[in-house]
Amino acid sequence: MRAVVNVFLKDGVLDPQGKASHHALDSLGFEGVADVRIGKQIIIKLETNDRDEAQKEVEQMCETLLANTVIEDYTIEID
Amino acid sequence: MRAVVNVFLKDGVLDPQGKASHHALDSLGFEGVADVRIGKQIIIKLETNDRDEAQKEVEQMCETLLANTVIEDYTIEID
Repeated sequence: MRAVVNVFLKDGVLDPQGKASHHALDSLGFEGVADVRIGKQIIIKLETNDRDEAQKEVEQMCETLLANTVIEDYTIEID
Repeated sequence: MRAVVNVFLKDGVLDPQGKASHHALDSLGFEGVADVRIGKQIIIKLETNDRDEAQKEVEQMCETLLANTVIEDYTIEID
């Protein structure tokens, strides 16, 4: 199975990488950009073929390593 | 409009961040992980309401700033 994990900063948490990209886009002449936020997309290939087991395991991975749940939220898609 | 851009390393390009996470997951006792790849997810809020214009503009942003097209591929979703 393949898990796609998106990790992004919670609303209200300052995103310096996003801010920098926003400024850079402005300087390059891209007008009409209201906001830029940058997160991580983590693609995990798992050996199991059990969807529930995969979901559970990836949730644990997020809680222990992949996301900092104090400032980050995450979503998991299994396919 | 809102654009979701996923930027990820091309197949065959070494992904040290993914490798490090893979090792860390192994050390934490997560078995059955075959591969980990880490990319960026960039969420751009645009002032325009024209889908085609948004798509075109974000493509240009990717080509000039957001992705290094020598080693990275990207996908764009507009919603």
